[in-house]
Amino acid sequence: MIKIGVVGAGSIGLLFAAYMHKLFDVTVYTRSLGQAEQINRNGIRLVKGAGPLTAKVRAEVLGANEMDNDLTIVAVKQYQLDSVIFHLPANGGLLFLQNGMGHLKLLDQLKADDIYVGSVEHGALKEAPDTVSHNGAGLTRVAVFRGDPWLLEKVASLLPGNFPMEIEPDYYEMLAGKLAVNAVINPLTAVLGVRNGELVDNPRYEKVLEKMFEEVARILDFHDKQERLLKVKGICRNTSENRSSMLKDLDAGRPTEVDAILGYLLDKASSKGLAAPLLGAFYEMIKGREWTGRVNR
Amino acid sequence: MIKIGVVGAGSIGLLFAAYMHKLFDVTVYTRSLGQAEQINRNGIRLVKGAGPLTAKVRAEVLGANEMDNDLTIVAVKQYQLDSVIFHLPANGGLLFLQNGMGHLKLLDQLKADDIYVGSVEHGALKEAPDTVSHNGAGLTRVAVFRGDPWLLEKVASLLPGNFPMEIEPDYYEMLAGKLAVNAVINPLTAVLGVRNGELVDNPRYEKVLEKMFEEVARILDFHDKQERLLKVKGICRNTSENRSSMLKDLDAGRPTEVDAILGYLLDKASSKGLAAPLLGAFYEMIKGREWTGRVNR
Repeated sequence: MIKIGVVGAGSIGLLFAAYMHKLFDVTVYTRSLGQAEQINRNGIRLVKGAGPLTAKVRAEVLGANEMDNDLTIVAVKQYQLDSVIFHLPANGGLLFLQNGMGHLKLLDQLKADDIYVGSVEHGALKEAPDTVSHNGAGLTRVAVFRGDPWLLEKVASLLPGNFPMEIEPDYYEMLAGKLAVNAVINPLTAVLGVRNGELVDNPRYEKVLEKMFEEVARILDFHDKQERLLKVKGICRNTSENRSSMLKDLDAGRPTEVDAILGYLLDKASSKGLAAPLLGAFYEMIKGREWTGRVNR
Repeated sequence: MIKIGVVGAGSIGLLFAAYMHKLFDVTVYTRSLGQAEQINRNGIRLVKGAGPLTAKVRAEVLGANEMDNDLTIVAVKQYQLDSVIFHLPANGGLLFLQNGMGHLKLLDQLKADDIYVGSVEHGALKEAPDTVSHNGAGLTRVAVFRGDPWLLEKVASLLPGNFPMEIEPDYYEMLAGKLAVNAVINPLTAVLGVRNGELVDNPRYEKVLEKMFEEVARILDFHDKQERLLKVKGICRNTSENRSSMLKDLDAGRPTEVDAILGYLLDKASSKGLAAPLLGAFYEMIKGREWTGRVNR
């Protein structure tokens, strides 16, 4: 049986462990001993439409033992990566599930031969240290960052049909495409306080969307700019009634992912000597709203 | 008695006519015959703290007769100027009270010797064709655009103490200074939905304010940039509890003055070949909110 390690027991880590435990030999690596004990005692409770299931998986504190897995899935937030990266094994494959592209520079420094990156399109909420609710069925897109795809292909072929994994040909395209979408839709909807669809239904907002996309496209060096812009607009239309995660985070007074999204792009712009005035202003406005949210709490 | 003409019977025109009627021989020029008849019949009702007064002034439709005044005060909105300008007399002084600076290019084409511009810092609301409420006491700043200041000085010296007029040495400074303040505080508060003070209390918003001011300062060619920026921030602090006129207009679903403010600056930027990405984006966002307001009505 293929041995899978899952580093990080947040919503995404718990979701992967729960869906993979029947077909793989799964170990979850937690930050706290308490959470590891709780998962070892109760298993992971997976809450979804059809009713809750319990997945009996093994858990241990990250760093307690040497890892020995065929594939290690790294499911921590991007800003937590620094604190887990030196625990990762040099043997076996690694799959990184962080948002944005800020983590790519870290991957170059790793010794593992086979490194993969992924982008998770599931909705999941951690309700307790041993409970995750799967409230938005989607899929996981993955791609080879370095090395051989065989392990990824093997894992993808074994996964259950209600938890699919799609292999994309180009990791940069995959992550850059998602970043461009997030960098435009999230900040604009969050600052304007509107649903995704209004960015294309309102011709004035659409102009601002285009200007922001222009800055993103220059920073990420897109050659198929027009096609990608149409895709961003298509997503606004297809998710027209949705409130973006950044808008929801701000309304709930939670921190947003603006650093992994606009922060990354602004760093990249600055290292390339490119101006990105709109991305800069939206970054500050989102940060300003986060600040207000904290102060008013 | 000095003869004063007031062109335009909106809130500012009615306010000037009402305060000036005792000390000057005032004629109000209206657009509609109905309003002229109503004012001739009832006078102008001036509503303020101490209770309402009635000012008996003469009114007539603009263009019905040749004007023959010592000073003609033009109190229409900037976008109405085109339709009244050919009625203005070539003799006597002219005082223009429009917001922004878009009207200055029109003034060059006039034949009158003495042309003045002013900036009104009163709060006034037209409640009926013959009624104006003076709900924010302030002052009128004026300056010579072309010609001799004697008429302005004479009028200023005769005005009552509760309706003061202050003569500024440099019209460009006066109007550009006010435009810079409006171009930064109005759009930012309107898009962020905050009171004036939050633009300096929130360090992230303050950064965006500085970037916007930077664009304004380059377009208006300010040499004392730092001093003016401090002044803008000082106004945010002094009016910290105020909701800007643009924020109020948007919330009430009314059109804003964004064209006279940001529209003017964007035209000027484009004619000078300067980029103004933030002013452009805020212009579109305000226009977008106006559009939403109209659609939802």
